[in-house]
Amino acid sequence: MNFQQKLKKIVKKNNSLVCLGLDPEIEKIPSIFRKRRNPLFSFNKEIIDSTYFLVGAYKPNIAFYEAYGLEGLKELKLTMTYLQEKYSEVPVILDAKRGDIGNTAKMYAKAVFEYWNADAVTVYPHLGLDSLLPFFAYKDKLTILLIKTSNPDSKVFQDMKTNGEPYYYALAKKISKWNYKNYGIFVGATYPKELKAIRKLFPDKSMLSAGLGAQKAAIGEAVKAGIDKNGENIVFNASRSILYASSGKDFAKAAQKETKKLKELINSFRR
Amino acid sequence: MNFQQKLKKIVKKNNSLVCLGLDPEIEKIPSIFRKRRNPLFSFNKEIIDSTYFLVGAYKPNIAFYEAYGLEGLKELKLTMTYLQEKYSEVPVILDAKRGDIGNTAKMYAKAVFEYWNADAVTVYPHLGLDSLLPFFAYKDKLTILLIKTSNPDSKVFQDMKTNGEPYYYALAKKISKWNYKNYGIFVGATYPKELKAIRKLFPDKSMLSAGLGAQKAAIGEAVKAGIDKNGENIVFNASRSILYASSGKDFAKAAQKETKKLKELINSFRR
Repeated sequence: MNFQQKLKKIVKKNNSLVCLGLDPEIEKIPSIFRKRRNPLFSFNKEIIDSTYFLVGAYKPNIAFYEAYGLEGLKELKLTMTYLQEKYSEVPVILDAKRGDIGNTAKMYAKAVFEYWNADAVTVYPHLGLDSLLPFFAYKDKLTILLIKTSNPDSKVFQDMKTNGEPYYYALAKKISKWNYKNYGIFVGATYPKELKAIRKLFPDKSMLSAGLGAQKAAIGEAVKAGIDKNGENIVFNASRSILYASSGKDFAKAAQKETKKLKELINSFRR
Repeated sequence: MNFQQKLKKIVKKNNSLVCLGLDPEIEKIPSIFRKRRNPLFSFNKEIIDSTYFLVGAYKPNIAFYEAYGLEGLKELKLTMTYLQEKYSEVPVILDAKRGDIGNTAKMYAKAVFEYWNADAVTVYPHLGLDSLLPFFAYKDKLTILLIKTSNPDSKVFQDMKTNGEPYYYALAKKISKWNYKNYGIFVGATYPKELKAIRKLFPDKSMLSAGLGAQKAAIGEAVKAGIDKNGENIVFNASRSILYASSGKDFAKAAQKETKKLKELINSFRR
């Protein structure tokens, strides 16, 4: 089963386009975890156990583990293994934002798809096709190309007029002509107009979007812009707004409630 | 001492603009290492011990360690610690090609500058200034912005006409107007004309270039294009051509010879 099939299946089963970002920060998770041996994993585990039936995907951002060095990455490994063993039907997108020339890209692809065993990864397309082929070589995995990021300054470079169009769009147009199947597309939900234009270019591709929670994108606009003709094939990531819905003992219950609320809010715009 | 001062000092002492890329691949290093406990670190150690007086910088590319998971990253840690304890006067550039929105960029910056304790890091500038500020906050460290990569396909997107100029140049021009000090610039040595144009935009910035070895850039052209008015403030990376100069027992001696040869060849174009 390839990524797109796996995503379609769980989106139907859980009736959810929510992607939950597993980005734990030691200063923000409930203080009870700080004394435990694997604080980040222990926190993730409880979050996962109370949300797995409400999401379309999980998305750990590797930066939040790298920041704590080998110890942090060990906790990512525990998290990935836990997800793969217990909830293998939910696809895991490793948000690693990698990108390098061919010989090195091969090593990154090996890391994300073989060592971390992610179902999908985020990658910068700016280096060109030769930097992406080592990722595309993993046929059942999805390589999600970062077309337009969600941050405020993303417009400064990504929107520069290129051949009469914004750069991100000119880049996407070239990509849309490629004859490769197993890539996906990322556009920030904070830019719904851009998301709509890019969805038109890639009507059949699985998409990832982000910025619904702490970044406060307008949900209705973003959902309508991003869904395909069947009202699916995209997931919207939220991290902080769910993970830290409560900092008390009820954090897992609060995260569950927040995920359910977001799921239903998104669904209200799918029809 | 900040990065630029550290680089200036060692370039003078070793009279070298060679940056040696520490990118060990288990299949390519001499077979004797494959049975040892820390094959990548053991290999690096011998390479470092026979080249430290011939280089201006070391540059491990983190992908070559990530590919082997936690075990590989442990060997990178051993390598970084060894360099910092034994050869602290040689700056270490961690080639990580990171880049993410502000909140996440903070975690990456923490990882590369605090955990890995690198002197410099390579970063994608395409997300804009807000994604770079968390790196710039480390005042003595250098954040090297990837302006134009060395791979053949780099021209497909990076050279698209933007405001009448190639995209990489339009991007660099905007960056050159920023009022931040501690960033450096990367341009592939395989594009000497582009390197020259970018050096003109950044006459005082420390630069990194790559592609002299296995990628076969024309050395003379690249060196003349990249050096500043004093014939310095740039290092040229080579990895495979030095690391695998010999696959026999004499690999360290061969690497030393190859480094010396490259150093002298580069120097012949500096005056």
